[in-house]
Amino acid sequence: MQRLIEYINTIKPKVDNYIAKVLEGEPGRLYEAARHLPLKGGKRLRPALLMLVAKALGGKEEEALPAAASVELLHNFTLVHDDIMDRDEMRRGVPTVHVLYGEPLAILAGDLLYAKAYEALLKTQKSPDLVKRMAEYLTWAAVTVAEGQAMDMMFEERWDVSEEEYLEMIAKKTGALFGACGAIGALVAERPDYAEKMKEFGVILGKAFQIKDDILSLVGDEKVTGKPKYNDLREGKKTLLVIRALRSLPPEEAEELKNILSKEEKDFEELERAASLIKKSGALEYAMKVAEQLEARAREILSQLEVVDEEAMDLINELLEFAVKREF
Amino acid sequence: MQRLIEYINTIKPKVDNYIAKVLEGEPGRLYEAARHLPLKGGKRLRPALLMLVAKALGGKEEEALPAAASVELLHNFTLVHDDIMDRDEMRRGVPTVHVLYGEPLAILAGDLLYAKAYEALLKTQKSPDLVKRMAEYLTWAAVTVAEGQAMDMMFEERWDVSEEEYLEMIAKKTGALFGACGAIGALVAERPDYAEKMKEFGVILGKAFQIKDDILSLVGDEKVTGKPKYNDLREGKKTLLVIRALRSLPPEEAEELKNILSKEEKDFEELERAASLIKKSGALEYAMKVAEQLEARAREILSQLEVVDEEAMDLINELLEFAVKREF
Repeated sequence: MQRLIEYINTIKPKVDNYIAKVLEGEPGRLYEAARHLPLKGGKRLRPALLMLVAKALGGKEEEALPAAASVELLHNFTLVHDDIMDRDEMRRGVPTVHVLYGEPLAILAGDLLYAKAYEALLKTQKSPDLVKRMAEYLTWAAVTVAEGQAMDMMFEERWDVSEEEYLEMIAKKTGALFGACGAIGALVAERPDYAEKMKEFGVILGKAFQIKDDILSLVGDEKVTGKPKYNDLREGKKTLLVIRALRSLPPEEAEELKNILSKEEKDFEELERAASLIKKSGALEYAMKVAEQLEARAREILSQLEVVDEEAMDLINELLEFAVKREF
Repeated sequence: MQRLIEYINTIKPKVDNYIAKVLEGEPGRLYEAARHLPLKGGKRLRPALLMLVAKALGGKEEEALPAAASVELLHNFTLVHDDIMDRDEMRRGVPTVHVLYGEPLAILAGDLLYAKAYEALLKTQKSPDLVKRMAEYLTWAAVTVAEGQAMDMMFEERWDVSEEEYLEMIAKKTGALFGACGAIGALVAERPDYAEKMKEFGVILGKAFQIKDDILSLVGDEKVTGKPKYNDLREGKKTLLVIRALRSLPPEEAEELKNILSKEEKDFEELERAASLIKKSGALEYAMKVAEQLEARAREILSQLEVVDEEAMDLINELLEFAVKREF
């Protein structure tokens, strides 16, 4: 995945520059709050995917830049609001926006990031018809991400969440925006006939990415991920790991896991115990297998495309591998 | 203004129907939270303005419907988030969304309303070029409203807010969306050459509307307005009334007003005293005069237009009068 990392390192300053420019304005404190998260790092996978799809299908990288900044802005908007909803205090190794700027300004900074996502997208130098279609995909993603986030929240109150429901939730919460990246990338390449296929690809990639995210929340190194370990367990999230472990563990251990996850406040020892029960259940291996199956399905879609730039297509394949194999 | 009220009564069910249809989806509780405010009344002035501008300049009312629903959705998104930020518990005579559904779901319901505003707008049956321009105006409004709301919040901490700063703040917080209604109305009528002029008209109308809103917060009947009396005073808002009163009152009374407004918690007697000091200062008459000057400037713009439907133009003039003369 070395080449992918090199590629991202070449586009990151361009995307970040574009974002920094879009996020200049008054009042200064609002724009400062809005800049905090997007300019504090992040993997830039969504802009990379959008740009690589555009290139692979015959578009130019520069033409994809406003749209690439747009999807990253939309992503950051959802993170700022999610952190308020989940009361998370750290992200990307730094305090979250509401911790630094207070909740009212953080809500507003999120709203501004969202509006700026459209502002950037609408600057794309393509025919109005293509730009309008891009805006439709961005809007579909925004609606769908909100639905997924609501499902995720509601699952916290339930014990009977099925694997199928979980997979639908992550297709919405995480898949939709990756799907929009795929579709918008195809539109930048002036291949509207490929938009739906690349959306489907992106959604599957996003699901695999989210499953890996859940796994990293359990076994990742927080110095590498930038997120507090066991965050999902602390918040009682119904991840695939939890769903699977509850079904696979012997009844008493399943009950014990449930009891820990039900607690309003959990100490570190309890979180460690919950994690060890999940590990013991085989849920990690199971989740990895599901992620790899998704990876294979996504790879199948890629193999059907008429490719203009093979090098870009290789990098999309690496990105897919990264989504599942990464340690951060 | 009887004819205006009759007109609004004919379009309201159409707009509400469109909004209700756009706000159907899963998960049910998210969509229920999103529907709460937009379907609990509201004056529908923004959709009315957009539709009337479209008609007056030669467009068809039905063609304006998706855009009319869009601006109302955007307006409701800002209200849902503003109520969280301002900790307001009542609006339109009913509890606010975060009171009924909790803050996390209310933030998300606001986000969904925002996304749905674009979804509705992008359904407009006009050329992609016109629809793209509409989306640009909606985006400009969303960015500008966030800036205005941030200014409003920051003014709460300051005593040296000037009249000029206040007027800039309301041009952004309230004027921008009315401005977008004017511009988008012109685009529905396929008169892009009028978009900027109608935006200017809308911004001025919105400023007059906001000044009247501030006045009603002080002297309005809460049974008629649906909003708790003295809300602005309670929150320490720097309205034109407060700015003017602080400058016009004798030093001891200005100090007394400042002391009351500075208090974290204010009892009803203190709010009554603050209101009576403001009334005594002549600030109400002054603010009415400013609103009427804005009304005159807006009317001047209307008089310069090539009008296709004179009846619709008469109603726009009535809407302008209503903004300044209304009791609710």
